[in-house]
This record gives sequence, C-alpha cells and structure tokens, in this order.
Amino acid sequence: MNTKKEIIRILEQNSEYVSGEKISEFLHITRTAVWKNINALRNSGYSIESVTNRGYKLIARPDKITPEEIALGLKTKLLAKRIDCYDRIDSTNEEAKRKALAGAPDGSLFVAEEQTGGKGRLGRSWTSPAGQGLWFTVLLRSSLLPSQAANITLLAGLAVCRAIQRNTGCAAMIKWPNDIVIESKKVCGILTEMAAEMDRIEYMAVGIGVNVNNENFPEELSVKATSLRLESGSFIRRVPLLQEILFELETVLKDFPLHTESLLREYKSRCVSLNRRVGFIRENRKMVGVAEDISPSGELIVRCDDGTKFPISSGEVTVQGIYGE
Amino acid sequence: MNTKKEIIRILEQNSEYVSGEKISEFLHITRTAVWKNINALRNSGYSIESVTNRGYKLIARPDKITPEEIALGLKTKLLAKRIDCYDRIDSTNEEAKRKALAGAPDGSLFVAEEQTGGKGRLGRSWTSPAGQGLWFTVLLRSSLLPSQAANITLLAGLAVCRAIQRNTGCAAMIKWPNDIVIESKKVCGILTEMAAEMDRIEYMAVGIGVNVNNENFPEELSVKATSLRLESGSFIRRVPLLQEILFELETVLKDFPLHTESLLREYKSRCVSLNRRVGFIRENRKMVGVAEDISPSGELIVRCDDGTKFPISSGEVTVQGIYGE
Repeated sequence: MNTKKEIIRILEQNSEYVSGEKISEFLHITRTAVWKNINALRNSGYSIESVTNRGYKLIARPDKITPEEIALGLKTKLLAKRIDCYDRIDSTNEEAKRKALAGAPDGSLFVAEEQTGGKGRLGRSWTSPAGQGLWFTVLLRSSLLPSQAANITLLAGLAVCRAIQRNTGCAAMIKWPNDIVIESKKVCGILTEMAAEMDRIEYMAVGIGVNVNNENFPEELSVKATSLRLESGSFIRRVPLLQEILFELETVLKDFPLHTESLLREYKSRCVSLNRRVGFIRENRKMVGVAEDISPSGELIVRCDDGTKFPISSGEVTVQGIYGE
Repeated sequence: MNTKKEIIRILEQNSEYVSGEKISEFLHITRTAVWKNINALRNSGYSIESVTNRGYKLIARPDKITPEEIALGLKTKLLAKRIDCYDRIDSTNEEAKRKALAGAPDGSLFVAEEQTGGKGRLGRSWTSPAGQGLWFTVLLRSSLLPSQAANITLLAGLAVCRAIQRNTGCAAMIKWPNDIVIESKKVCGILTEMAAEMDRIEYMAVGIGVNVNNENFPEELSVKATSLRLESGSFIRRVPLLQEILFELETVLKDFPLHTESLLREYKSRCVSLNRRVGFIRENRKMVGVAEDISPSGELIVRCDDGTKFPISSGEVTVQGIYGE
C-alpha cells in the first residue's frame, strides 16, 4: 500500500519520465516490485505511461466516475439532474427501466464502472469490463410519438460522434442506425429501449457503451471492436467525455424536431453505410444492395441490384468493409 | 358468521325462492337481520336474487378469482400458464411490467380483485372497485415488430367483444381503437403498453378492465360507463368470462397475421366509429370528419368535410353519439 503511494508521490513530483531503476533504488524494492506496483496502480485507474529506456510517467490520476465528478463542470440543463453511479451492476439499461417504473425523472443518468450483464441490440451481450469504458443510460421522458423514436436513436449516435471527435480527435463515423465506428471498427454501441402506449412514449432508455481505455479485446471481438485509446494512442479521461456526450445529446434533442433537416444532413455525412453495398434480411431472404439514403423518418433506403428500393427499419444490416464483412 | 353460513345452507338446499319470513323464523332472527346478512353475503361475492313476495334465491357462490378457479377449465394453450392473483394492487399493468423486468414468461396473467391506481390510456385513471370487475393484464412476449403493435391492440378489443357476446348475450361493439361499448356506453377499456427496442418488441402488457357487476357509477362516469350486469340484467360470473376472454385472445393472436383480412373485416363490423362523425386533434387543431375505414395497419381513416383524408393513429377520437358526445 505504502509503496504504491510512494510511487505516485515520486511520479507526481516529476513532470518527466522516471526510470524504474531510480524508483527501485529510492524505495529499496526490486525492479519487479516496481513493475508490479505500477500495474496495480493502473488497474485502480491511474494512467501511467511507460517508455523503454526512459521509464514511467504519470498521465492522469484515477478516472473514477462519481456523481460529484460528473456534476462538476457539466454543461447540461436537463440531463443528469439525477445521477446514480454503480461500481457494478447487471446493466444500466435494466437499472434505468427498473428506476423508471419507480418514477425516476426525465434525464436521469445511470452509470456503472462495470456491467455484469451488459446488453446489445436484439438481446446480444455487450462486454463492459470495469473501469475501461463508459457504460451508461440516459432516461428520457419526452412527449414524443413512438414513430419519432427511430429519429432519437439516430440522433443519439450523432451526439456521441460529435463528443468523441471533439474529445479525442478521432474521426468517429456511424454505421446505421447508431453504431459508432472508427476506421471500420466499433467503438461504441447504443441500445435504445422504450416503454410506450400505442400513441405515447412513456420513456426511452438510451444506453450507451463506449470502449474508452480498453487495451485489448477478446479474440472473437478484435476484428470488429476497438477503443478510443487504441485509436487515438492516448489514455482518455472518461468523465469529461461523458459530460461532452451528455451535452451533445441535450443539444441534438433540443434541436429536434426543429432542425431535423440539418441534423439529418450531418448524420448522413457521418454515416459509413451510405453508398456502400449492404446485406439485409427481408421476409427470411438474404438480400444485397446499395444503401442510397436515409429517410426523414430514419429508415435506410437500399436499392437492390434489380432497381427495387426498400426502406429498412430494422438494424440488421451488414456493411461491406465494416466489422470485417 | 354462523348466521350467514346458515342462510347459505338454507338457500343451497332450496332450488326455489325462500321467503325472508321463513328464514327469520327458522334462525330465530329478525327480518332486518336476514336482510342485513343477505347484503353482507352479496358483498363477499355471493349472488343472491331477491324478488318481492317470493324471497331470496342463491344464484351463484362467491365469484372469487383464484389461480385454481382460473386454471380449472381454461381452454388456452399458451396464455395464463403462469397466474398471479392479488386482492389489491396498484395496477395490474404496472405489476406485469415489474414482473416482466424480472423475467416473467410469455402469457403470464396478472389479475386483481381491486386496483388502487388503475390506469387508462394517456395516463388517465381507471376506476377498479373490489370484486366488481375483471381487472387483469396479459403479458405477451412475441416476435412481433413494433409496427404491428397497433394491430394487436385492435385484436385485443375484438377478443373481448367476442367473449362478452358469448358469455352475456350483450351486443358488444368497439369504439376505435379498443374501447368496448354496449349501447354507446363503455363497458371495457384496454391499455396496451409495450417495451421495445427500435425493431423488436420485448413485451406487450395488455391490460383489460371490464366493468362486470358494478351496479352504479360515480355521477361523472355514469353518462359514459356501464357494466355487463346493468346491460344484461343479470349477475355475471367473472372467472368464466375471464377464461373466455383469454381463449379468444389466444385465438386472434394465433390467427394474426395469417388471417389478417378476415380479422379486420370482423373488427370493422363491430366498430361503432365507422360511418359516424368523429372529432380529432391534428397539429393542435380540432378537426371533424367522417370515419370511413380502418387501414391494414390499424389506423382510422377519416374524411374531412373538404374531402381530405387523414389516417389517424392516436386514440384521441370522439365519436358522435358515443359517451354522450
């Protein structure tokens, strides 16, 4: 314990790299012990860079997500007025839905350091290791119609894109409807669920999972998944990114439906699915075509090789060149 | 206690009317005590008819709703495999949603003798006094698309209509989308809620409230509400009616989408909204027209006086001659 504290103190006092040798001499411990302690510190959230022949450098203190950290400097007016943080939870969407049933207000935010049962679209799982990403859900209780929900789904993707680009410089793009991709790999998934009557949305749970500082992925995912750290080459602080996403989400929601056209234009400019060959299932048949446009109600318009056009509202669309397809 | 039991024993042993005088003599109690006990028995669910100059006759034992009663003789294959009964609950839809989140299976049935926070469409309240009606919710976990949910809503109305007609002889009709009316008064409301991703329904909670044996309504409701007992003139046993509704619901769901056309035809033949003047709100303007048709996706097609036609998917439609409009 004390050793870790001492290492942090040493690194904090040096703006430059400190060699492992120096640390080991100073603290009277072995080089292996230094290395082990550095790793332990990293695991508890310290960002420490190591460069061969130069040593270690403290980049950032723990990127711990707490209501206080999130609230400090948050630029939103409506979102995240209520913040629930969890070290570990089954799924922030499930929690949001439970809390929604119990009356949680519009804009409530549910964030977890780790999800044990993270969910993707269509009942798939979403890997959410502790401390490495942003796993959160925003609860929206709007007066929107169910028919507008698809648009909200697209807009959430656009908001995340903007925030990632501003915070990391990465060129974040969208695979329709709302996967966020960088260089054809997925860096963020969004699962929008809603509770509705036939003509009234009671609430929407917009679940957003961003791979932030993951340094590697299980083999079966590595073809199609990446993280902001892997793409930008730098450790990314999660709380400022979360704040930025919330701000952009509030902005696009405020702009909708007033500025639907310009939002749709921006969405299209970020959409990697357009003008590419795509595959989709229709009436149990696998079909192929070129994605030509996004309709005002959020559908992907695909022109098949025989000239017929289909508006697609389901998200099961593969895109040539994306996720190794 | 004993007096009530004795009265029941006397009435059960007589297939004909027994006079209050005979009962009072036999039990050595006053005529008023007989009358009081008869009323208490009625309140606890015994159906006892009284006819001037003839006396009392036991029509039915308590119409208590229990899982055993419901399961006995139930003709469904899928619905009500799981049955949760409550003496009193906030709302069977809310309970169904909570249980759905916790994993309740397809077809689960939630029934309450009394709802303390019964809900109608668009957040309205629904009066659900103890023992007088059927207040229940069926949980459906189907593989339907959200776009088909409106059809399910209509079909639920159709199923209730069929069951009421078969069990009571009352000509049950539908005010679009799924209010059940008899002689232009509402006898049943249906609140369909769903939890969905953008392209997948996770579950639907079909909440059905039938005014069965209510003998009167609060003044503000009496213009537009009625009960099966008031309309048929007889006490209606609730469990057989519930079983019939479940059976018809399963039947229409099984027939959809295979026999959509014939279902739609039957729906239209029962729909009181058609060929009448209706009022609705469009873009904050009150509009009036004639309801001409129901579209295959469940919308009400209204032709306004200037000849323009509107497909209406919201349920806020008043119908001339219905509910005192």
